[in-house]
Amino acid sequence: MKKAVVLLSGGLDSTTCLALAASEGYECYTLSFDYGQKHNAELNAAKKISQKYTVKRHEIIKLSIGNLGGSALTDDSIAVQDYSGSTDIPLTYVPARNTIMLSIALGWAEILDADSIFIGVSSVDYSGYPDCRPEYINAFRNMANLATKRGVEGNPIAIVTPLINLTKADTLRLGLSLGVDYSQTVSCYKATDEGLACGRCDSCYLRKKGFQDAATMDPTRYI
Amino acid sequence: MKKAVVLLSGGLDSTTCLALAASEGYECYTLSFDYGQKHNAELNAAKKISQKYTVKRHEIIKLSIGNLGGSALTDDSIAVQDYSGSTDIPLTYVPARNTIMLSIALGWAEILDADSIFIGVSSVDYSGYPDCRPEYINAFRNMANLATKRGVEGNPIAIVTPLINLTKADTLRLGLSLGVDYSQTVSCYKATDEGLACGRCDSCYLRKKGFQDAATMDPTRYI
Repeated sequence: MKKAVVLLSGGLDSTTCLALAASEGYECYTLSFDYGQKHNAELNAAKKISQKYTVKRHEIIKLSIGNLGGSALTDDSIAVQDYSGSTDIPLTYVPARNTIMLSIALGWAEILDADSIFIGVSSVDYSGYPDCRPEYINAFRNMANLATKRGVEGNPIAIVTPLINLTKADTLRLGLSLGVDYSQTVSCYKATDEGLACGRCDSCYLRKKGFQDAATMDPTRYI
Repeated sequence: MKKAVVLLSGGLDSTTCLALAASEGYECYTLSFDYGQKHNAELNAAKKISQKYTVKRHEIIKLSIGNLGGSALTDDSIAVQDYSGSTDIPLTYVPARNTIMLSIALGWAEILDADSIFIGVSSVDYSGYPDCRPEYINAFRNMANLATKRGVEGNPIAIVTPLINLTKADTLRLGLSLGVDYSQTVSCYKATDEGLACGRCDSCYLRKKGFQDAATMDPTRYI
């Protein structure tokens, strides 16, 4: 049975990726990170979703990068701002986050002898982070081929980005066709520990707009 | 003052890199990892060496990748073997380790607005790990430029590899010219908590040979 490591934050995109990998017959290993986020709602959602999809193993890697500061997602001195429509890279950007997470996924995939890593990045409806773009993903693939024993042996681990060209509405339509229960997913940057969303941050804005554009009921539990 | 993040394991190579960065006038930020190594001698050495070089900050990132298994350096069920002269990738290989460490260094460098990351990889006297080769480092540089806000803004963070073409003896000569006290460094994969070296693993073999080739006294404290 082919194996996949699936990066799972517990949000809308990564849960759709997991549903897709499972539907394609992969034995799934989900990977989440406790990197000093301000709330636990995402990790709690990732745990429940991993159970629902009966993944082979769900690993939460503790990673003390929150100490380094620099992002509104981990640094108490920087507030998460409401959606403003700005095209600047926002304060919620965690420097090199996707690179760090993909690197750890790469190590685990090599240990498991997994064929693929699934990551739910999108370069369409996103918050302007540089590490969500196709040119970044391609550069990571190239680096990964050179970094690993598998790559050197000519059997590289695939970096699969099924959502990269999808709008949030497209992603929702894909997930709904796969039976995803989006009420279980948490996207909000400021969610309560119970998983209630603020409805006002960038992530809530993109999610809410996705449900509107897909003309489907939004099951998000707002404060 | 220009800033550098220096990856510091507490071994011979990374300590030489730190001495070099300091001699070039960088304000140094040292970065070590507690990733589930079987011994603490390296991290203790990294702490002492960071103090000696009066670095601006020494950060030890806790990173629970040891749970993932797969390497003799972290997995109790896999023994560290004595040097055998084999050219295969050895059991001490930690999948994607340099990629993970460089990724976290990249994130910290971006937060600090540091110009450079120093890493003491060598493609000459090394244990056959794929992520020590120049083609890997070049691919990481390319990926890093696309991953970060700094890279996107045309002001990339340099990945500096001063030892990449040096033999162990060359590295020792460089470090000795900079006044490095190698008795404080720990290279052994099986060091005791007091920092005594086994003298028999791959890492001890390469280090010992380096001192012989450089025709200089070996101050390593062996068991």
